[in-house]
Amino acid sequence: MQTALQALLFAPIAEDLAEVERRVQATVQTRAPRIAEVAAYVLGSGGKRVRPALLLLAHRLCGGTDREAALELAAVAEYMHVATLIHDDIVDNAAMRRGRPSANITWGPAVSVLAGDFLYARAIQMLVAHGDFAVLKAFADATVAMTEAEILELCWERNPDIPYEEYLAIITGKTAALFSAACRGGARAAGAPAEQVEALTEFGLNLGIGFQLVDDALDFMAHEELLGKPVGNDVKEGKITYPLIHLLQTGPAEVRDVLLKRLGRLPIGDGDVEAIRALVREHRADEATLAEAERYLHKARACLTPFADGPAKASLATMVDFVLQRRW
Amino acid sequence: MQTALQALLFAPIAEDLAEVERRVQATVQTRAPRIAEVAAYVLGSGGKRVRPALLLLAHRLCGGTDREAALELAAVAEYMHVATLIHDDIVDNAAMRRGRPSANITWGPAVSVLAGDFLYARAIQMLVAHGDFAVLKAFADATVAMTEAEILELCWERNPDIPYEEYLAIITGKTAALFSAACRGGARAAGAPAEQVEALTEFGLNLGIGFQLVDDALDFMAHEELLGKPVGNDVKEGKITYPLIHLLQTGPAEVRDVLLKRLGRLPIGDGDVEAIRALVREHRADEATLAEAERYLHKARACLTPFADGPAKASLATMVDFVLQRRW
Repeated sequence: MQTALQALLFAPIAEDLAEVERRVQATVQTRAPRIAEVAAYVLGSGGKRVRPALLLLAHRLCGGTDREAALELAAVAEYMHVATLIHDDIVDNAAMRRGRPSANITWGPAVSVLAGDFLYARAIQMLVAHGDFAVLKAFADATVAMTEAEILELCWERNPDIPYEEYLAIITGKTAALFSAACRGGARAAGAPAEQVEALTEFGLNLGIGFQLVDDALDFMAHEELLGKPVGNDVKEGKITYPLIHLLQTGPAEVRDVLLKRLGRLPIGDGDVEAIRALVREHRADEATLAEAERYLHKARACLTPFADGPAKASLATMVDFVLQRRW
Repeated sequence: MQTALQALLFAPIAEDLAEVERRVQATVQTRAPRIAEVAAYVLGSGGKRVRPALLLLAHRLCGGTDREAALELAAVAEYMHVATLIHDDIVDNAAMRRGRPSANITWGPAVSVLAGDFLYARAIQMLVAHGDFAVLKAFADATVAMTEAEILELCWERNPDIPYEEYLAIITGKTAALFSAACRGGARAAGAPAEQVEALTEFGLNLGIGFQLVDDALDFMAHEELLGKPVGNDVKEGKITYPLIHLLQTGPAEVRDVLLKRLGRLPIGDGDVEAIRALVREHRADEATLAEAERYLHKARACLTPFADGPAKASLATMVDFVLQRRW
């Protein structure tokens, strides 16, 4: 199902995406065999390749013809994403990733720290070889934003007083920054004029914020079988996301009291997680989250308006719609 | 003592080095306060600032006048070094760093992973702002080499069959790559002609290899009080460095047998460490290591020959001598 949808969404760039897939799954060139092993494991374990797809579609939308550059940059986007996933699994002490034991569990934190560092550094090398400072800057800025966001998230862990602005800063850095850099990279590689580059940068940013809001809603709404990963994880890990922020700020006082009591338990038990998830659904804070996501997705759609109609634009527009509808 | 020697060594760049010190110890600009805290802790805990000094001296040697660029790149070199130290402490599970509890112990691996990522990404941002692709490439290549070397080191851990070539690859990546990038960066920032840039790149590489060989010898030779850090650490952690490789390959069969037996114990006890260290000294494998270091330091000196005499050249030449003599 996921694959069929992806095929539909990514039809205009199917061949290019397959080539990116071949490249990222090819043996990473390194004299340290263990790195190649970890990279192959993590890069070979599925993943939706949303960031490479965004980059390729942005490139296509701007009429880009430098296929080689777009393919390399698309691989960079996935390398950077995977590098952060590997490090996040250390940060969250996650046992599973994409349905398999995480690299952290399989090889231990030492190898995981270094494998993440390697993939990130290799991505920078590829950006240097590509030779466009604007693209390098976009990805470097995204990485700074990602690490800041992860730390901010740790700082606000289990703290129900997190203001919406901080939450927004976290999801912007965590997800939207790299979406945005990928779109910008695709537009730059196409030699697009400045206003198109900016429009796509803005598109990626809003799409990413919407995407993460939906992700945060799904943690409360989804069933594990459909999502393909455990639900209720954010609650369990003490991450206070939009559905909870919204319910804490707008829900009845007695609901707030129950939430604070359950969120205050250390550790938060499975019963607490289920009770909190049920409250969020009962008070429609999940739907409020999707409505908030829609605000950003609406902005994303508006960023596409100036572009000429065609398969790439249709694909990106469908992606925006799909982000809201996805239940995986 | 250390400070007096450093003052002498770094006299021509004393003011610039003090300015770098102010910059790296200034609050790191970030919206995640915890990052600034970790960065301040790690950057404020001493360190010899060898890499910034090399960069500034290389810049001076080539007649550079772009002080601002040199200062920024010197800070980059230290940020990159410190980022790898923070991650290394996770890799080695080190309790202490520069005489204080490591960041890994103080804040835990989650914050440490992210703080290292942040400092590295910030360094890349600064290199992008500097705007010289050749310098960016030098530092990006050094980072790839550093992560590869760290993984190689893990792969060869506790393995007495490690060939000299692999050991050389490890110390080259671990230490010499960043020394070399720092020297190259200084020369480039000075607008030096290609042959001077290459000479200083080569200088840094050989100095770094010599430096690490001496470091590895000191783990067997030094006293803890003088070195300011625990001795025998490499042996304890199962790192087979030059003194052991040399003794295993050239020592009498009975010494080899004793070494293999003691190195094979898990964990290697304090008694084993002291016995192994004593054997290395008894069979002068520590001195053989210094002789090997001298081969590289000799090459480093030769790289300076084409440059005109002056305070910067004298400083760099003294550094080479000092690397061999240092007992800290």
